[in-house]
Amino acid sequence: MSTTETAQLVDGSGLAARTVEETAARAAEIARRTGTSPCLATALVGEDPASVTYVRMKRARCAKAGIRSRHIALPATTTTAELVGVLKGLSDDPGVHGILLQHPCGPHIDERAAFEAIAPEKDVDGVTMHSFTAMSFSSPGFVSCTPGGIMRLLEAYDVELAGKHAVVVGRSAILGKPAGMLLLAKDATVTYCHSRTVDLPAFVREADVVVAAVGRPRLIRGEDIKPGAVVIDAGYNPGNVGDVDFTTARTRARLITPVPGGVGPMTIAVLLAQTVEAAARQLGVEHS
Amino acid sequence: MSTTETAQLVDGSGLAARTVEETAARAAEIARRTGTSPCLATALVGEDPASVTYVRMKRARCAKAGIRSRHIALPATTTTAELVGVLKGLSDDPGVHGILLQHPCGPHIDERAAFEAIAPEKDVDGVTMHSFTAMSFSSPGFVSCTPGGIMRLLEAYDVELAGKHAVVVGRSAILGKPAGMLLLAKDATVTYCHSRTVDLPAFVREADVVVAAVGRPRLIRGEDIKPGAVVIDAGYNPGNVGDVDFTTARTRARLITPVPGGVGPMTIAVLLAQTVEAAARQLGVEHS
Repeated sequence: MSTTETAQLVDGSGLAARTVEETAARAAEIARRTGTSPCLATALVGEDPASVTYVRMKRARCAKAGIRSRHIALPATTTTAELVGVLKGLSDDPGVHGILLQHPCGPHIDERAAFEAIAPEKDVDGVTMHSFTAMSFSSPGFVSCTPGGIMRLLEAYDVELAGKHAVVVGRSAILGKPAGMLLLAKDATVTYCHSRTVDLPAFVREADVVVAAVGRPRLIRGEDIKPGAVVIDAGYNPGNVGDVDFTTARTRARLITPVPGGVGPMTIAVLLAQTVEAAARQLGVEHS
Repeated sequence: MSTTETAQLVDGSGLAARTVEETAARAAEIARRTGTSPCLATALVGEDPASVTYVRMKRARCAKAGIRSRHIALPATTTTAELVGVLKGLSDDPGVHGILLQHPCGPHIDERAAFEAIAPEKDVDGVTMHSFTAMSFSSPGFVSCTPGGIMRLLEAYDVELAGKHAVVVGRSAILGKPAGMLLLAKDATVTYCHSRTVDLPAFVREADVVVAAVGRPRLIRGEDIKPGAVVIDAGYNPGNVGDVDFTTARTRARLITPVPGGVGPMTIAVLLAQTVEAAARQLGVEHS
């Protein structure tokens, strides 16, 4: 492959827009048939500016898609027990179809305990043990939103995964680990690399599919991308920089996600889609 | 490395015996301090001869270690709902500290539903979503017994895992997948290979640690073992044959598990150890 060739760009913004459009149509159908719009409850502990912005953005997207949202703003002093109580209340509330706990919640909160207070059928952000196990064993349940968005992108671009070597760089609970499990479920041979991996470039050079999910700017060098590989950059670092050195990588990959406009927009799209799916199931509306 | 050198053999039988000895001492201490011996409930649906033998063997080992067992033999016609009822009853029974559902349960049983009826604190066989997530995220909980046994063997032989490349061949819910997660938690770079992997030998050749967990006799050829690698054979096939071609592999590995006497004995040892640990926690007995 000549270095003057460049990879096809994955249009994450476009797929996200189509996903949201379909989701909005389904939300409207649910409202028409049941008199109830899907409802996402968002909970936030404290007032971290980035978290406040994320929640506001998610709620604005909900509104545009015909999804109601209900925000629970909790003081920074909220205890784990209080947060668990709030989330259990939302889990029991038939007027709420999906629950999003914005995280990180702060060091004084036992996040795992909080997540587990979310009923599996309302876990539209895919953070519970139930959802992780569902992703790992292909059993019924929701997916973590960013890994779910990655899988939708790969499917939209007809990327064959069976028998391919997928290298996931990163092993976080909501991104790297579930992404690897979803790729494994599609019959890829999956390698998890991380901060303790010795000679990361050697692994990247063997990858048919690279998923970068670590949050370190340009950690993955373009010259290590195998010619013809598919590169999914889920990293997002200050200055619109991903985990992959895009400029060089695009001269070697056959398909690559830009940052921004690649994986990023899919995360919220999956959140909205799963909220509407949760509402449809809870309200007994079949997919028409 | 000359081919006349041979690997050190992992003495799984010896470590298992020591583990059971420690477990028996702890069971005796619990009985002395509380008046109650640890109790494992075993449940079996139907009368599959192999399953009957496995349960009998496990109960006999319990008895030798001072662990009581209570067996629930259910007819082959038992429904999922009935099995769930039995397991919930055992979960609620303060006289039972650990629960083992012998599986496979037969095609008419929803095994996942049955497993989830086991309370996490009594899941000494490590089959629930809670236990899988605990293994995946290093959170509190029990481990699946065979992967747990593998990790104890690696620790007993001071096998350094951080930064090493561990190749797990197999991706079953109770063996391959959790083994990979436990290795990842120890900072290994982990690759999952399986039946759809293209060129398995190429992956094996790169492995510092090979975990064979697939149940295909001598699938892994000795000549593909990297000189100096650690080889863990969790396969068990008719005729005492593992998943690794032992004769050749031992000329290249530095440490290798024999079949039998390697991984196998550790599985029951971990089951017993976790049963006693569960009893200690439920009865409020601190480790002395």
